[in-house]
Amino acid sequence: MAQHGSRLVVPIDVTKKPRQQKLPLHNRWHPDIPPVAQVTVGEVFRVEMVDFSGGGITKEYTAEDIKYSDQSVVHYLSGPIKVVDEEGEAAKPGDLLAVEICNLGPLPGDEWGFTAIFDRENGGGFLTDHFPCATKAIWYFEGIYAYSPHIPGVRFPGITHPGIIGTAPSMELLNIWNEREKELEENGLKSLRLCEVLHSRPLANLPSTKGCLLGKIPEGTQEWEKIANEAARTIPGRENGGNCDIKNLSRGSKIYLPVFVEGANFSTGDMHFSQGDGEVSFCGAIEMSGFLELKCEIIRGGMKEYLTPMGPTPLHVNPIFEIGPMEPRFSEWLVFEGISVDESGRQHYLDASVAYKRAVLNAIDYLSKFGYSKEQVYLLLSCCPCEGRISGIVDAPNAVATLAIPTAIFDQDIRPKTKKVPVGPRVVRNPDIPRCSYDGDLPITKNPGATG
Amino acid sequence: MAQHGSRLVVPIDVTKKPRQQKLPLHNRWHPDIPPVAQVTVGEVFRVEMVDFSGGGITKEYTAEDIKYSDQSVVHYLSGPIKVVDEEGEAAKPGDLLAVEICNLGPLPGDEWGFTAIFDRENGGGFLTDHFPCATKAIWYFEGIYAYSPHIPGVRFPGITHPGIIGTAPSMELLNIWNEREKELEENGLKSLRLCEVLHSRPLANLPSTKGCLLGKIPEGTQEWEKIANEAARTIPGRENGGNCDIKNLSRGSKIYLPVFVEGANFSTGDMHFSQGDGEVSFCGAIEMSGFLELKCEIIRGGMKEYLTPMGPTPLHVNPIFEIGPMEPRFSEWLVFEGISVDESGRQHYLDASVAYKRAVLNAIDYLSKFGYSKEQVYLLLSCCPCEGRISGIVDAPNAVATLAIPTAIFDQDIRPKTKKVPVGPRVVRNPDIPRCSYDGDLPITKNPGATG
Amino acid sequence: MAQHGSRLVVPIDVTKKPRQQKLPLHNRWHPDIPPVAQVTVGEVFRVEMVDFSGGGITKEYTAEDIKYSDQSVVHYLSGPIKVVDEEGEAAKPGDLLAVEICNLGPLPGDEWGFTAIFDRENGGGFLTDHFPCATKAIWYFEGIYAYSPHIPGVRFPGITHPGIIGTAPSMELLNIWNEREKELEENGLKSLRLCEVLHSRPLANLPSTKGCLLGKIPEGTQEWEKIANEAARTIPGRENGGNCDIKNLSRGSKIYLPVFVEGANFSTGDMHFSQGDGEVSFCGAIEMSGFLELKCEIIRGGMKEYLTPMGPTPLHVNPIFEIGPMEPRFSEWLVFEGISVDESGRQHYLDASVAYKRAVLNAIDYLSKFGYSKEQVYLLLSCCPCEGRISGIVDAPNAVATLAIPTAIFDQDIRPKTKKVPVGPRVVRNPDIPRCSYDGDLPITKNPGATG
Amino acid sequence: MAQHGSRLVVPIDVTKKPRQQKLPLHNRWHPDIPPVAQVTVGEVFRVEMVDFSGGGITKEYTAEDIKYSDQSVVHYLSGPIKVVDEEGEAAKPGDLLAVEICNLGPLPGDEWGFTAIFDRENGGGFLTDHFPCATKAIWYFEGIYAYSPHIPGVRFPGITHPGIIGTAPSMELLNIWNEREKELEENGLKSLRLCEVLHSRPLANLPSTKGCLLGKIPEGTQEWEKIANEAARTIPGRENGGNCDIKNLSRGSKIYLPVFVEGANFSTGDMHFSQGDGEVSFCGAIEMSGFLELKCEIIRGGMKEYLTPMGPTPLHVNPIFEIGPMEPRFSEWLVFEGISVDESGRQHYLDASVAYKRAVLNAIDYLSKFGYSKEQVYLLLSCCPCEGRISGIVDAPNAVATLAIPTAIFDQDIRPKTKKVPVGPRVVRNPDIPRCSYDGDLPITKNPGATG
Repeated sequence: MAQHGSRLVVPIDVTKKPRQQKLPLHNRWHPDIPPVAQVTVGEVFRVEMVDFSGGGITKEYTAEDIKYSDQSVVHYLSGPIKVVDEEGEAAKPGDLLAVEICNLGPLPGDEWGFTAIFDRENGGGFLTDHFPCATKAIWYFEGIYAYSPHIPGVRFPGITHPGIIGTAPSMELLNIWNEREKELEENGLKSLRLCEVLHSRPLANLPSTKGCLLGKIPEGTQEWEKIANEAARTIPGRENGGNCDIKNLSRGSKIYLPVFVEGANFSTGDMHFSQGDGEVSFCGAIEMSGFLELKCEIIRGGMKEYLTPMGPTPLHVNPIFEIGPMEPRFSEWLVFEGISVDESGRQHYLDASVAYKRAVLNAIDYLSKFGYSKEQVYLLLSCCPCEGRISGIVDAPNAVATLAIPTAIFDQDIRPKTKKVPVGPRVVRNPDIPRCSYDGDLPITKNPGATG
Repeated sequence: MAQHGSRLVVPIDVTKKPRQQKLPLHNRWHPDIPPVAQVTVGEVFRVEMVDFSGGGITKEYTAEDIKYSDQSVVHYLSGPIKVVDEEGEAAKPGDLLAVEICNLGPLPGDEWGFTAIFDRENGGGFLTDHFPCATKAIWYFEGIYAYSPHIPGVRFPGITHPGIIGTAPSMELLNIWNEREKELEENGLKSLRLCEVLHSRPLANLPSTKGCLLGKIPEGTQEWEKIANEAARTIPGRENGGNCDIKNLSRGSKIYLPVFVEGANFSTGDMHFSQGDGEVSFCGAIEMSGFLELKCEIIRGGMKEYLTPMGPTPLHVNPIFEIGPMEPRFSEWLVFEGISVDESGRQHYLDASVAYKRAVLNAIDYLSKFGYSKEQVYLLLSCCPCEGRISGIVDAPNAVATLAIPTAIFDQDIRPKTKKVPVGPRVVRNPDIPRCSYDGDLPITKNPGATG
Repeated sequence: MAQHGSRLVVPIDVTKKPRQQKLPLHNRWHPDIPPVAQVTVGEVFRVEMVDFSGGGITKEYTAEDIKYSDQSVVHYLSGPIKVVDEEGEAAKPGDLLAVEICNLGPLPGDEWGFTAIFDRENGGGFLTDHFPCATKAIWYFEGIYAYSPHIPGVRFPGITHPGIIGTAPSMELLNIWNEREKELEENGLKSLRLCEVLHSRPLANLPSTKGCLLGKIPEGTQEWEKIANEAARTIPGRENGGNCDIKNLSRGSKIYLPVFVEGANFSTGDMHFSQGDGEVSFCGAIEMSGFLELKCEIIRGGMKEYLTPMGPTPLHVNPIFEIGPMEPRFSEWLVFEGISVDESGRQHYLDASVAYKRAVLNAIDYLSKFGYSKEQVYLLLSCCPCEGRISGIVDAPNAVATLAIPTAIFDQDIRPKTKKVPVGPRVVRNPDIPRCSYDGDLPITKNPGATG
Repeated sequence: MAQHGSRLVVPIDVTKKPRQQKLPLHNRWHPDIPPVAQVTVGEVFRVEMVDFSGGGITKEYTAEDIKYSDQSVVHYLSGPIKVVDEEGEAAKPGDLLAVEICNLGPLPGDEWGFTAIFDRENGGGFLTDHFPCATKAIWYFEGIYAYSPHIPGVRFPGITHPGIIGTAPSMELLNIWNEREKELEENGLKSLRLCEVLHSRPLANLPSTKGCLLGKIPEGTQEWEKIANEAARTIPGRENGGNCDIKNLSRGSKIYLPVFVEGANFSTGDMHFSQGDGEVSFCGAIEMSGFLELKCEIIRGGMKEYLTPMGPTPLHVNPIFEIGPMEPRFSEWLVFEGISVDESGRQHYLDASVAYKRAVLNAIDYLSKFGYSKEQVYLLLSCCPCEGRISGIVDAPNAVATLAIPTAIFDQDIRPKTKKVPVGPRVVRNPDIPRCSYDGDLPITKNPGATG
């Protein structure tokens, strides 16, 4: 008789701190972090995870914890998990590891999440020059739906997904990462032709022993010290997958990850109840603890067969994803457009980041006419199932990016209307989100076109 | 009794040249191009249009016409069309013009289109440094479906849409455009921190009398000369809408356009049977002649009520779009990812254009394993209903962009597979697309990671 | 170079009567009606058609034409069309004919349709005992959308389809039809255990020379007389397809029809701009003239390979249909349920027809609370894209049938609400539909549960 | 701070028998069964449930338990649950109870289910005259997907739903049920014009003390005896909702139930991982234990405001359902048609049950060409997400019913094909389902059209 149900391979107790979990967590990428569990292809297994901050950000209605959050500890990951085939042979470098997401969700008893704007001096975000203050919204889940007391009038079904899933890098790949990011960090501001509208700093987060957690490697040992000084931070997505933040990677999806080390040693974390394309406020998804039910296959030699490296080495590849059939049907979308002209009116050349920034700013201004503060909308567009598209990337000099918002998530009709009554923008005094002041002195981008 | 059917306000005869049409076309934006037709809010009217090249690119199986195509004449537009309300009052600056797309399609008897890669010295495209040669594919339409003898094994339903729809700019807005684009053209390469992976040149296309067509303004007159020297080219999308290339702007959609001149004077053209997000090969949609059935509303004072200018003047706005409910259902998507590391391995900072370039390159390499040449895939990804997403724009230093391809458009299973037979990459010698040689001497980007 | 566009094989001039069309129409099924056109597999061809009544029902705002409509002439069909393969070999009995619907729509210049309730003595309908009066609503089309001045507050995208598509029967099959329907007509009321809630009469429509039109067969000849006396009426769907009224048979669909005679000789007609499952008011779709763009394949020997006869002879088969990907997305549905207990409270045994009648009656009563007359709703549910489901057919004694209505077709929120203001049933005095009186004396079913 | 997570109001321990659960279950409808829990409007609460048989049917690979299953104990329900408003006021007769399904799924650790055909003498089913033998298939769940070792080559996402949800009837309503069902049971075969193709017997299941379970009412008491003799069986759906088997009633759906007794006292059970419209094999869904997360609203006076009774009393109403946005996207459907001509070739009059039977038989025969036994397909069509539609109910004499099957659930292309290789019917010897012999002597319907 066949098996049923999923085997729990990484358990989490959310009442405990990240360093007290039964199986140790980690928050860095390194080949020498040993696996904490082993799974066989074909079996369905369950991986639980803390939220990205490991409980550092709480459900209190204050943004203080956001303002002073410790960026060095993110993201707490579950794993590494070693994968073997039916004969017990481990996945090998050069294979593809296919991971199917059979199911996923919040941890029972912990059905809530948060979305936040980091302070400009402590993380920032896509629009940090416009919105420098730390803020936070708490979301509660009612099954598939999320609602927030801080952003009233919206309720939406989440397309829940893990923000991070990736395999362990080989030492060679890790070195590539560290070199290119160090180069950026050191010389980027002067040598790189950098998009001027992106204000978050630092440019990259280099290896650091501060806040470092390395699974089974005991802290303070020589081994720990060595690894901590080499291990890559988890913020960016890279060749191993990692923080790809693909918002549709939900139930029924499959991820094809390149294998760089024996056993594949994949890790996952940073669960999102829901996220908008771009995750614009940075801490922008509805962040939560959660579980995944997964099933693996090994495609032997799959890297060569299916991936083509793009770059100087055979390791310069990217994973492939397959999006499953289970998502909410939205029948209507309101779409905001941005072109690559910045807030000062300056023309940029086919810059999709500038265009997307403009599209998001346009959407924020529009929706703020319906009774919301701009920060509320900024958070909402970070976490609701909105779609960020590169619509045109060739019509020089303007890239056209669009942000499409499903109209059904609002309890009012947000479309422009000819008639004034009973439709059209409502000015309703809603509750607002908890926020802190910004105490820094970096310049704030003001929109000269805005009135009042 | 109510009216039915649509009133033909702009007729096209595709056997005639652009300059011989009954109602004159135009290929520039300028406030002084007089309207060729007038419509009333609420009525359904029909606008026909030539393809963007006005027949300059033919259905012959050769890419010669692409290689030497005249970029100065694009895009031939139908209009301007003046809009008045039920009382005969024209739309006024400050209003919003809502244009609903009730229906659209190819012109009867002209059910074909083309997709092309421009030569690197004559237009280029998003990947022009990889694919410098002019190529062309012809597509035939079978109702909602398109297929090409040059890209066998794919057939897909088109999400047909007008690439261009926009209102006439005021003189003030036109001046803003001309100044910022001139600044870019003149100083961009040295002053702007320009994304180095975008190789198409020139940076902008400034006003030019060459190829200029100004509707009812007789060529050669003083008036014509003046306008031709001021009028904006139609390639980029701008504040008035224009070449926004939003691929989902199909049946049932609505466009909310700002009104800058009396009557709104909107124009439309550049019909696409289908386009992928980004329209990557530049001449990348399935370009065709076609018709639109439209219905207008005027939202009086709507610019102030619904749009917030973002930039130095009240004119720095963007249109809003509403996407309708009628689109093909695709249940499964294969998703390719790119991060902002370029082909040389260099790290860029949150650059969505670099990331998207990488995602498209990855998809091209992948699909070329299934029996296609890379140019075939480049064309296919320009025109099939694939989605280009900005997935993560905050995880420094890597922007993550994704390209999602509906698997159902292929006649083979293109997903990675564990088992080799009967699935997995097929090496089939297919017919290829017509192409020209590249005779220039600009450097070509080679992928050092590619074998052979 | 490949062909493009569709070859017009059956042209229609809607300003002419059915008997004056260039290619003669027919309104009966018989093997000896000669084909009017020939098509080859693989080619895309265009077939135009009159509305089912051939213009007998007009766009005047009166129901007189409905009340006295001539049921003997329906349905005027275009065809028969002979199908041959690339070598010119005709389809043969035993083959399957695959007909793909590449495109379809109203005839240009004739973008309107009608929905009607027949008088109880002249056609009736599913609820004729409740609604015996002839009524009519006119619909106008705005591209994909239909709206009616007679049923305000609704507008919906049509899932346009041909009500009738079928192959010519062989003489053997025709005899089977005529015998079983004659048996029903003669003995049904006494011998058959007939569902008592279905009140339309006659039970069947037997061959009749009255109103008969036989294509190229000259009226009044001996041949005409013979065929007219044998030829089957077109009202019911049968083994050859025919009036199957499958509302999703729209763009991108494919019909696999059994071939009974040399050449297949298929005909089509009865175009519907939109229809609800069940087409409950009988003249219940939005009836219109229209065109189809079709493409055929012949699957040699396909009847044996793919169909299993179910009944006494190998001819007792049914076609198969493939529904394409292009339909409107509706995100929310309100569902009405009926069980097999009739209006008098009597229990029936697993009778899906009784259950569906109850579901439709429930929906009518519900929607009439939102400002509509019951006849308006009856017409609306006949023609809008609502879904009629057999939800449970095994839970004795109650069959459960459901009727699901997409909420987005209304301009008000039709869901039940806790709060009274500003939502909930509106009592708005709307215009109503044109109607006639019922002058007969058949008993009307009154709902004892209704108030007032 | 708001609450999060759901309060468990009815816990289930699947290792225990129905009569040993902490809160007692019930398997009858009666006003005097006391509530086991109370909930307040607005709160999210969790209800767990056993499978309909309460563990009587096991995961053993044998059909013996099906053949001899005890029909008198079905369905074990969780509840009744009393609903009060924020002020603690109970729901009142005449109110509508809105129950939202926030989430639902299998019970952790019990992720399997079964689908079965009952023996013709012990339950039967829609096609019991064709398939009289007891059979069973076991399904295992991999997150959203189900697969069965007994029906290889299919895997599909479930649209999980409760088969039963209903409010307690008042005594007056209960009497109506008992009278009309008794009348049917006693006189149906002679008096009712009964559809002759429905062979399951008995016609109805009247109250019976055998197998009766009444929650908190102690068995054997006088009260128990009285109630057991009056209480309605749970098999049919009725005015209170009950066994409505609406397959789309999944996450995000809402049920509007009429309230007949103080507190509403609703119960739920009979969880289905997935079901096809009609649930044709009777034990036809993927039956499982499970949980629901629910949220209630009370619409005061909602029965009068939103429901219209249809029948002799104000109690003759039906619930209304709202289907949510979260369902799998299937892009393509293969549709089988049936008309109201039975297997003997006899013509019936607009009988949707006959037509649907024919459609299902056609689908079974078709799919059995792809390597399946007919019983495998019969089970599959009972439980996969196929849609049963009443397509035409007015085209006398033929009702047209259709059965639409999403093609994506198969691992082979099941569409008819012109070319034989590599597509088209495969004859693969698959494993088959466990089955018993049929030992009765009721006549079996043979299809004279079938070969061999």
